[in-house]
Amino acid sequence: MALWGGRFTAATQDEVAKYSESISFDQRLYKYDIQGSKAHVAMLAAQGIIPEKSAKAIAAELDNICKRIDKGDFSFSIEMEDIHMHIESALIEKLGAEGARVHSGRSRNDQIALDLRLYLRDQAREVIAMIRTFQKALVDRAAADKDAIMPGFTHLQHAQVVLFAHHLLAYVEMLDRDAARLEDNLKRINVMPLGSGALAGSTLPLDREFVRKKLDFAAVTRNSMDAVADRDFAIEFVSDLAIFAMHVSRLSEDLILWSSQEFDFIELDDAFCTGSSLMPQKKNPDVCELTRGKTARVYGALTALLTLCKGLPLTYNRDLQEDKLAIFDALDTAKAILRVYPPMISSMQIKRQNMKRAASDPALMATDIAEKLVELGVPFRSAHHRVGAFVKYCKEKGVALNQVTLVEMQETIPEATEEFLRLFRPVQSVRKRALKGGTGFAPVSRELRFWQKRLADPQR
Amino acid sequence: MALWGGRFTAATQDEVAKYSESISFDQRLYKYDIQGSKAHVAMLAAQGIIPEKSAKAIAAELDNICKRIDKGDFSFSIEMEDIHMHIESALIEKLGAEGARVHSGRSRNDQIALDLRLYLRDQAREVIAMIRTFQKALVDRAAADKDAIMPGFTHLQHAQVVLFAHHLLAYVEMLDRDAARLEDNLKRINVMPLGSGALAGSTLPLDREFVRKKLDFAAVTRNSMDAVADRDFAIEFVSDLAIFAMHVSRLSEDLILWSSQEFDFIELDDAFCTGSSLMPQKKNPDVCELTRGKTARVYGALTALLTLCKGLPLTYNRDLQEDKLAIFDALDTAKAILRVYPPMISSMQIKRQNMKRAASDPALMATDIAEKLVELGVPFRSAHHRVGAFVKYCKEKGVALNQVTLVEMQETIPEATEEFLRLFRPVQSVRKRALKGGTGFAPVSRELRFWQKRLADPQR
Amino acid sequence: MALWGGRFTAATQDEVAKYSESISFDQRLYKYDIQGSKAHVAMLAAQGIIPEKSAKAIAAELDNICKRIDKGDFSFSIEMEDIHMHIESALIEKLGAEGARVHSGRSRNDQIALDLRLYLRDQAREVIAMIRTFQKALVDRAAADKDAIMPGFTHLQHAQVVLFAHHLLAYVEMLDRDAARLEDNLKRINVMPLGSGALAGSTLPLDREFVRKKLDFAAVTRNSMDAVADRDFAIEFVSDLAIFAMHVSRLSEDLILWSSQEFDFIELDDAFCTGSSLMPQKKNPDVCELTRGKTARVYGALTALLTLCKGLPLTYNRDLQEDKLAIFDALDTAKAILRVYPPMISSMQIKRQNMKRAASDPALMATDIAEKLVELGVPFRSAHHRVGAFVKYCKEKGVALNQVTLVEMQETIPEATEEFLRLFRPVQSVRKRALKGGTGFAPVSRELRFWQKRLADPQR
Amino acid sequence: MALWGGRFTAATQDEVAKYSESISFDQRLYKYDIQGSKAHVAMLAAQGIIPEKSAKAIAAELDNICKRIDKGDFSFSIEMEDIHMHIESALIEKLGAEGARVHSGRSRNDQIALDLRLYLRDQAREVIAMIRTFQKALVDRAAADKDAIMPGFTHLQHAQVVLFAHHLLAYVEMLDRDAARLEDNLKRINVMPLGSGALAGSTLPLDREFVRKKLDFAAVTRNSMDAVADRDFAIEFVSDLAIFAMHVSRLSEDLILWSSQEFDFIELDDAFCTGSSLMPQKKNPDVCELTRGKTARVYGALTALLTLCKGLPLTYNRDLQEDKLAIFDALDTAKAILRVYPPMISSMQIKRQNMKRAASDPALMATDIAEKLVELGVPFRSAHHRVGAFVKYCKEKGVALNQVTLVEMQETIPEATEEFLRLFRPVQSVRKRALKGGTGFAPVSRELRFWQKRLADPQR
Repeated sequence: MALWGGRFTAATQDEVAKYSESISFDQRLYKYDIQGSKAHVAMLAAQGIIPEKSAKAIAAELDNICKRIDKGDFSFSIEMEDIHMHIESALIEKLGAEGARVHSGRSRNDQIALDLRLYLRDQAREVIAMIRTFQKALVDRAAADKDAIMPGFTHLQHAQVVLFAHHLLAYVEMLDRDAARLEDNLKRINVMPLGSGALAGSTLPLDREFVRKKLDFAAVTRNSMDAVADRDFAIEFVSDLAIFAMHVSRLSEDLILWSSQEFDFIELDDAFCTGSSLMPQKKNPDVCELTRGKTARVYGALTALLTLCKGLPLTYNRDLQEDKLAIFDALDTAKAILRVYPPMISSMQIKRQNMKRAASDPALMATDIAEKLVELGVPFRSAHHRVGAFVKYCKEKGVALNQVTLVEMQETIPEATEEFLRLFRPVQSVRKRALKGGTGFAPVSRELRFWQKRLADPQR
Repeated sequence: MALWGGRFTAATQDEVAKYSESISFDQRLYKYDIQGSKAHVAMLAAQGIIPEKSAKAIAAELDNICKRIDKGDFSFSIEMEDIHMHIESALIEKLGAEGARVHSGRSRNDQIALDLRLYLRDQAREVIAMIRTFQKALVDRAAADKDAIMPGFTHLQHAQVVLFAHHLLAYVEMLDRDAARLEDNLKRINVMPLGSGALAGSTLPLDREFVRKKLDFAAVTRNSMDAVADRDFAIEFVSDLAIFAMHVSRLSEDLILWSSQEFDFIELDDAFCTGSSLMPQKKNPDVCELTRGKTARVYGALTALLTLCKGLPLTYNRDLQEDKLAIFDALDTAKAILRVYPPMISSMQIKRQNMKRAASDPALMATDIAEKLVELGVPFRSAHHRVGAFVKYCKEKGVALNQVTLVEMQETIPEATEEFLRLFRPVQSVRKRALKGGTGFAPVSRELRFWQKRLADPQR
Repeated sequence: MALWGGRFTAATQDEVAKYSESISFDQRLYKYDIQGSKAHVAMLAAQGIIPEKSAKAIAAELDNICKRIDKGDFSFSIEMEDIHMHIESALIEKLGAEGARVHSGRSRNDQIALDLRLYLRDQAREVIAMIRTFQKALVDRAAADKDAIMPGFTHLQHAQVVLFAHHLLAYVEMLDRDAARLEDNLKRINVMPLGSGALAGSTLPLDREFVRKKLDFAAVTRNSMDAVADRDFAIEFVSDLAIFAMHVSRLSEDLILWSSQEFDFIELDDAFCTGSSLMPQKKNPDVCELTRGKTARVYGALTALLTLCKGLPLTYNRDLQEDKLAIFDALDTAKAILRVYPPMISSMQIKRQNMKRAASDPALMATDIAEKLVELGVPFRSAHHRVGAFVKYCKEKGVALNQVTLVEMQETIPEATEEFLRLFRPVQSVRKRALKGGTGFAPVSRELRFWQKRLADPQR
Repeated sequence: MALWGGRFTAATQDEVAKYSESISFDQRLYKYDIQGSKAHVAMLAAQGIIPEKSAKAIAAELDNICKRIDKGDFSFSIEMEDIHMHIESALIEKLGAEGARVHSGRSRNDQIALDLRLYLRDQAREVIAMIRTFQKALVDRAAADKDAIMPGFTHLQHAQVVLFAHHLLAYVEMLDRDAARLEDNLKRINVMPLGSGALAGSTLPLDREFVRKKLDFAAVTRNSMDAVADRDFAIEFVSDLAIFAMHVSRLSEDLILWSSQEFDFIELDDAFCTGSSLMPQKKNPDVCELTRGKTARVYGALTALLTLCKGLPLTYNRDLQEDKLAIFDALDTAKAILRVYPPMISSMQIKRQNMKRAASDPALMATDIAEKLVELGVPFRSAHHRVGAFVKYCKEKGVALNQVTLVEMQETIPEATEEFLRLFRPVQSVRKRALKGGTGFAPVSRELRFWQKRLADPQR
């Protein structure tokens, strides 16, 4: 090839090696690769496929390699492609022919499927535990200010008075479903693929149950082609993280709004904010803003993974190598979020007086009046119209809803009594929402106790 | 407003109405809206919030409205925004003040959350049932040709011989996880939100348990702000459909490849193909191609939903109205796929001779030789090298692997015996992969029986 | 096929027809399909491929069909797949053998490429014109209140004082780039593909230049396989719309914030807001919220299109049929946005007093003090530190920056003079930002005049 | 904070620093940051804002810092957040108060906008040059085998005979549009934002034109709020890369198909393939597969960027920091693709005999027969029907189209003559497609010359 001539052997091969290597990112799987190989050789020996003493030598050297990598005393190089080849080569270098037995009855295709499942099993469990910590921080924060009231918003407009604690508990619920999704995902992760070979199984008398038990999996995969070709369990994992990130992006938005001069409901601890290089007075809610941004990143990872797998013929295709970058990035991002949010929530100051002042906007109680009318037997839609007319009356007169006399109120709401004038007290308004799930003091206290107990349970 | 002057009242209002209406797509929820309203008014009456006879009149008229919509005898108009307003207006038009009681203690925010949950509960169950039918078609198709052999591919290169049935069963496994994901999703869908009001609950003495039982939900939501603000259960649903579509896009790719003149492994029934407007000889696998394309559409819906919810402050924001378009489009697409695939799979012809000829490529048995060497005690990596050298020898000599003499083979594989020359029989190769999950006749037959039994079970 | 037995011919064929039809959405291309066919037959006749009188009869009947479709007097049916087959069939039905000549030297593959390009050419030009109208509404709105001041935000924190007009003009700039992108896109849309046939060109002596001139295209495509296989021009179009929607989503966010009780900077006209089914006092900025939501939808369309085309082998594949749904949805959404925003911007009321009160926060002038120090020769970073110390001093003392004496200020800013105390006047602060591109009255007035002149130019 | 107690100051601050740092990825901007700062201080001195000798000292030390970073003799630390702070700190450390003048009249907001624009300007130009090299490799490869014929595909079915060169030139066209898009993008990148300050401009008498000329920008930004808040130029850049990647993913798919045992049209050079850890005979087209996978990654980056910016209020928000990761990842991926594809294309072997054998499938000439009939005056649709009937006849008889006698052909095609029997020669079929853009030898030769000349032109 005249065109590429001289540099072909050198520069091009370098570029191709760089293009196709995965060791720069799959090295994080080393413990799982080693754990899997140890179970595999134990089985090979038990089945008489390799000598017992080979298995022992391999296992010992694998432990040794693990310690070397732990200590940073192991060199990685893109020429040797991936973590599997690095470890196998190190084995052979040390043990010679004995080490060369490790890959019997195995392909990198089932090996990486195993590594990824072992890794995600650990990680999913860790993320769940971190979510519990996050929930606990929210519950404790809510409990610490459990009688603080604030306006509740729909459409970012004042809607009805709510408890600050109730608002935070909404996020506790969301996080609980996020954890539940990951627990469901674990059922699909926790299945043992080794023995699937490259795609068709093996002609050797492997004992897949032996390996399953050794690695504490719930089951073995039932179809070798499926086992090496599919990554749905990992896409599901990233989808779960995307939904989790979406939830935290909403909390972040709330915190950013509350930190603005206009809302001024909270003050985040300085540790979670930064200043400006130009404006000396600034204190910006950077962590919250970055989290909205990082949510976008998790979405990007999900898009990448789904796109990656679309339209691939069976079975393994090298495209799948790119899955790890997206999985790891989404996971690292989610864990970073989970590390900074609990302390940020715990340390934020709430400005109860400002919240309360905003919650005293009498327009927030318009629904209370309408529901009072329903209690008196007025059909709801009529009640709604009357209160609507009342609101309009006040607006045109330029007064707040609670600045009218009873007589004035009766012009639009004939059924109004003195009691109606007392409906504008925000604490009253909260108290009356006593249904399960509502913002009343009683149901919110019950929920706080429920969550405190539940999150304290070590079995969870 | 000089600029927009005259047309403001007319044209602009029209445009805004068109911009914000949802009746054109949420009308499909009418049955669920009515079902929910009936449960709600029964409860209102039971709690004494509205008179018993109002409740009865409302329920009767709701049934009537339902029948009218069923029959197409109900007119929808974008001025009346959404399905909730249409039905409430129709009630009031007929019943006057009695009808105006229906919305007591309810907001459109908790009402739409209820409708969507009722709808998705039904739809998720239906999709699961359709997936079972699809699995059954695949299992039956596999069973009908259970001894057909074909090349198995990795990287779209000949890898090892597999059974056609084993290949199809890989998809049965994928679909099974797809159904399992939806079943897990149902746990999060099947929760009753009514009583959450606009965001804060209600001041009226509603009985949420009553409604829950009436509508057969597993639980009630525990936080009103969460209940009206979050759509995670629907995003999860669409994510599940996206993964399902990804799986079918892979099957489609396989079928398209197999239908090409170059592979020529199958012939799809004419009913699933179309011709060309220009080229008279063409028979195109359109359904499969469209499915790859439709997969992209489901991904687009997921992207839209996740993006929609990102960074929204609590609680309800009108952005959420756009969720339905994405949900419905993903769902309709998935169901359309599920309607055409079972008959396409059932009716396709397989060309066993062509498959077998391709499967007779002796290179497909290279792994068998390597594993034979392992059986004889050769360390795997050495075995792999020897067979690699043998493959290279044959390639350089320009002969197939099975066209050499034993003496020739022994040049690179000293351990080779007469038995080695018999390893090139594809049927032999398949038979020896007898492990659970492997492509051998025995394990594949066991799997076929397993699935036939499981899918026949009405409890599933 | 026992399994699908009886219903195969009926129900299944129906399902497949529904699955693969495009007439339900590609009928909107009819004018372009007809326009293209007329140019094509005129060329066929000029080249002597079909008789002159056939061409005339076809052209006349195409006009007739066009009128029928205009009037709704043409029936569409999914059995006839797409708009091309509908029109060709109608021709043949009327003209018999003469009509059957229309498709000579043409395939649906180059025909749809032509239709889509003609359609997008018109639509891109229309969207550009609508963007100009939107810019004009913003410029007029800015000019009408050109001296209104407000706080400018970074991180949603008070940063520096800006003119309301300057804030709106930022969006005029963004929209200008949106239009420029579409103009660039037009260069790639405006190329004539007919004559590419199914993929390889034609054996007939077509005159592609004739058709190009007739349809006013800038050039003909140079490679037939590229011409029928690629949709990059359409993906680029949707990407341009996605960026446009992103811009409007940001404006929407600003308007939503400004409409909140906490900011209270503007009041949107009632026509663009709706009320609540439960809360009688609510006035929600629905149009803005929906626009954020619709932005997600345009993103979804872009994801779908890119995913659709990924990894397709050359040339045409049926997957491409799904492109139209995504293109049309993104386009319709963008045009709907462009119809409602100009009147909403024109009719919104700004609350100048509230804006001004917020802009009087003396912290907004911290940068002015630092820059004053730079004028006096203090290195910027030192100036920044001094003002930072001053801000901290005030915060600890619990006073606003402008509530200290000169002596107090000198504790942290030794260089301070009486003049420093006058830096807290917001109008002053704005005035001093007189650089091109800055928020000063002078540069903003210049920009207003620039845009007024530019947008009035009919050549633009 | 009891809950987080002891570790708050240490561990938490660490986590927050890690969470918010950008130095790990924005350090690649150092040259541009320095280039921008040098232009800025030159202007500050020219305007008398800082002393001339300060400017000189700063410029000299910036050069020094640049050399240190070049050599790896500069330490980065996440405590110092980003590249801007690192460089400013290093200046101050060395120059004291003089160095502290560099940030006068500047904010990190306009500084990062400048750095990103300088960087993307360079990168966009580099990508364009690399695309030219890629086009050249394709053109040279096409020219080297310019008479090789192969089947052209639609729906992955044999459609019509084409030249291999024509197929490759389709990609040259696509790449040309990819480069054109980037050139258009450059118009929007190449605008100078400095002087916009944090968001409002500056009170100092900066000379923006001076900086513009110094940095060779085409214009200055016209609105400071827009300049610091928007990233549309970068989203457009990534969108352009996504479309480019889509194109290469299609080429990759073609190459993967052609490398399969079933197609067997090409052999990729060993340098671009890898073997299997289990199957000794494998040679996999890894580079092509990875490219499909990497395309998904670029799409993910685009999704992330669009999502990131959606719904952000003006002006700068910290979310934007995350833009760089997505931009850099998309860019690095595109450039990696552009490094490996030209040598892979240049070095691949084509198997002309296999291509020709496949191209000899007489069904590929069915359109030629239909068009022959059109030449004879048969209306096209009738011609199409006759050939369709002929194809069906042959299929039922089990013979190829060219294995029938003239008499047999006349049963379905009465107009057939001896000449018709000669239409099955593939070379003939190609030759007759002589239109511009068609696959004929003449137009393809013209295109090859066109591209050779165009790509040789250094002005391009």
